[in-house]
Amino acid sequence: MTKQQVGVIGMAVMGKNLALNIESRGYSVSIYNRTSAKTDDVMKEHPDKKLVATYDIEEFVNSLETPRKILLMVQAGKGTDAVIQQLLPYLDKGDILIDGGNTFYKDTMRRSEELANSGINFIGTGVSGGEEGALLGPSIMPGGQKEAYDLVAPMLEEISAKAPADGEPCVTYIGPNGAGHYVKMVHNGIEYGDMQLIAESYHLLKDVVGLSNDEMAEVFREWNTGELDSFLIEITADALTKVDPETGKPVVDIILDRSGSKGTGKWTSQSALDLGLPLPLITESVYARYISAMKEERVEASKVLPKPEKKAFTGDKKELIEKMREALYFSKIMSYAQGFAQMGSASKEYGWDLQYGEIAKIFRAGCIIRARFLQKITEAYERNPELKNLVLDEYFMDISERYQQSVRDLVGLAVQHGIPVPAFSSAIAYYDSYRSERLPANIIQAQRDYFGAHTYERVDKEGSYHFDWYGDNGEERWD
Amino acid sequence: MTKQQVGVIGMAVMGKNLALNIESRGYSVSIYNRTSAKTDDVMKEHPDKKLVATYDIEEFVNSLETPRKILLMVQAGKGTDAVIQQLLPYLDKGDILIDGGNTFYKDTMRRSEELANSGINFIGTGVSGGEEGALLGPSIMPGGQKEAYDLVAPMLEEISAKAPADGEPCVTYIGPNGAGHYVKMVHNGIEYGDMQLIAESYHLLKDVVGLSNDEMAEVFREWNTGELDSFLIEITADALTKVDPETGKPVVDIILDRSGSKGTGKWTSQSALDLGLPLPLITESVYARYISAMKEERVEASKVLPKPEKKAFTGDKKELIEKMREALYFSKIMSYAQGFAQMGSASKEYGWDLQYGEIAKIFRAGCIIRARFLQKITEAYERNPELKNLVLDEYFMDISERYQQSVRDLVGLAVQHGIPVPAFSSAIAYYDSYRSERLPANIIQAQRDYFGAHTYERVDKEGSYHFDWYGDNGEERWD
Repeated sequence: MTKQQVGVIGMAVMGKNLALNIESRGYSVSIYNRTSAKTDDVMKEHPDKKLVATYDIEEFVNSLETPRKILLMVQAGKGTDAVIQQLLPYLDKGDILIDGGNTFYKDTMRRSEELANSGINFIGTGVSGGEEGALLGPSIMPGGQKEAYDLVAPMLEEISAKAPADGEPCVTYIGPNGAGHYVKMVHNGIEYGDMQLIAESYHLLKDVVGLSNDEMAEVFREWNTGELDSFLIEITADALTKVDPETGKPVVDIILDRSGSKGTGKWTSQSALDLGLPLPLITESVYARYISAMKEERVEASKVLPKPEKKAFTGDKKELIEKMREALYFSKIMSYAQGFAQMGSASKEYGWDLQYGEIAKIFRAGCIIRARFLQKITEAYERNPELKNLVLDEYFMDISERYQQSVRDLVGLAVQHGIPVPAFSSAIAYYDSYRSERLPANIIQAQRDYFGAHTYERVDKEGSYHFDWYGDNGEERWD
Repeated sequence: MTKQQVGVIGMAVMGKNLALNIESRGYSVSIYNRTSAKTDDVMKEHPDKKLVATYDIEEFVNSLETPRKILLMVQAGKGTDAVIQQLLPYLDKGDILIDGGNTFYKDTMRRSEELANSGINFIGTGVSGGEEGALLGPSIMPGGQKEAYDLVAPMLEEISAKAPADGEPCVTYIGPNGAGHYVKMVHNGIEYGDMQLIAESYHLLKDVVGLSNDEMAEVFREWNTGELDSFLIEITADALTKVDPETGKPVVDIILDRSGSKGTGKWTSQSALDLGLPLPLITESVYARYISAMKEERVEASKVLPKPEKKAFTGDKKELIEKMREALYFSKIMSYAQGFAQMGSASKEYGWDLQYGEIAKIFRAGCIIRARFLQKITEAYERNPELKNLVLDEYFMDISERYQQSVRDLVGLAVQHGIPVPAFSSAIAYYDSYRSERLPANIIQAQRDYFGAHTYERVDKEGSYHFDWYGDNGEERWD
């Protein structure tokens, strides 16, 4: 009996679409799902594909050629642990499990270690691109044993998106154990930041510039032809043109402003907090979703809380729209600088040796954050693989030179008009902090030593010091 | 042989000072420390006190009257687990362990449950006030079994700080298991926010208004006589006057602007992220410390990154200083509103039934954040114990009415001058978001449904909907 080349477990949309993607490249694929009805559905919908339906784990495993390549697309967390336990009795040393779910990277590190004890390879893989990406070509972020990755690399390269600039597959070996899922987590955090910046821009275009949905769609379309050319800007422009057939109203106007989140934005922020890495823009974006979720409270508060005086914008609208474009691009850069710095921190912490240029390359297509701008990041790391922070690259420095005044002006304007701009504000605060030789943290150190004797360092010599703030004994060295 | 009334383990400064505090109220106290030299030092320094030195755990436990009241002041984490394990063989049912360390609240919840199995009471207790507070009167936040708390309440009330307004002891039963340590954690987060706002004010006074240290000290002293009357403002004013005897320079100018952190600020933020609770000001304050810690990178960046055009402030200095005072008070309110809302969220999540008015009361003295303003919070909860958010209280609404323009102006000014104000910006963004009936999260929901079919809700009816963005099939209900 012939064996199939690849197996996919989990026939929800993402798993199904990945299976179809793999099959479309000429591979023979076994599929399995915990509830068999979903497996039947897939077979019914696609009778002409080289898919082999299996109905229990043992049958599934035995249908595959060795070393087996099994893609897990099941519920992250307990669901994934469960399916691994079910598979183990039937696997052989050298088999490869690829976890394509939105798994928390520490779980991947744990599973990687546990499975290594049984000689099973584990590749924790981030997959970005939604359902369409899964079917036609996602961005793929695999992390695990390099030798195992090499065995699945050809298939992953074939199913991945291809970068517009050079046709390169949007997949690369990210690093060992949890590295792939970590990078996926940061990707998702960056996505929150990009979306929040677009939302703040929309808010300003609507309430300050006073544009209609169609006018805003035109602005985003225009922006999409330049530096901001990206999937998210493109779909925002398109979404603004849609009309709800039932009411005849613009769809975006009948959508409730209560935004959900699935958890990866908070994971990224929690990791930054652990690493001692500043990640303010993404974190403000997570909090902005939380505040939006407090809809009833906001409606009540809007009836009673004092507002600023109503202002009309009387300046040049075209000029303001261009400032906004510049502010958006600048702030995007700040967000990515923070996200890539975080990957740098994690890379050191976990010994992953991440290749930032390669990571930027695979974000150029397939994934939700795909954008022309990723090519600029790729080039920055080509110029300097040891780049400490994206803002230090010559291209991004030139943008900062030319565009920082626009974000300063925009934040000032928004705040006067009562439009909340947590992400834009955070962007300029980060830039002004990062470029400052001296920050007022000396005062914080003075206070900490004053009330808690936590000691401070001096500008002029080594050592930790405590000052006798309450008395007259001056300073003492305490280390 | 007479038994002692209370035992204290851990003779580092905090433990020693609490032991002395307890003894000073007339209690007999046994002390123990892992390395006996510290115990000897305490006895040598205070030969006239009713302290009984013990040199092993069994001797320590046996020296106490039952039910025993043992205060643990050892290293949080493994150190605390270790000492509990050492004590257990000698304890009796009904004995009370009070963990006064800066313990992570989830560890307290775990220990509480484990010890309950042995019939041992566990009171996880936050203690704030630094070394001086520990000695003379801290703010105390105990969480554990209510009946056990009642047995130690008289002692805790005696050693605690007393509120200036009414002489009430700054201790109250916070709630079960981890409640006390949770509230201490939030207190410490709030402390980060207060300190960051003061640092941003100092930065503006110095670099925009152009004041000397003595002039700034005068400003803070002046502020300390009004609404901003607080320990942190008071010590900032004092710190600014100190001169380093060695160099003759102001101490704050020779302190390196690299600020440290002990972890509790990040815990608060990480918990808010888990709870779905917006906590932007405190989190920006944590990140500001992290950026300050990147001193070498900032020095390098300052040499190359483009700055805004240098501006001189040509306005009225007194007027700007008053605006700053108003902005500082307003922003403080935003920070506390977020922190108290977080306690509300945690209270629901863990079933603690926290009493916010009582918590505000015990912060009025002893602790680092003590301030006249806490009395205002106390009164707000007296007016309405079910208050959803502090900004909705009539007193704070009046402040928002009168002071919001100042924070708007200040943020605009700071951003033009290139002074980073992450906390001030975050404060006004939070206020403008919270009071907005409509936020641009509809766009985020549209994008999420567009690329991931995550569905949205409608403004006009129930249900979760998906729109056929790529095609012509309009909207479908998906729940």
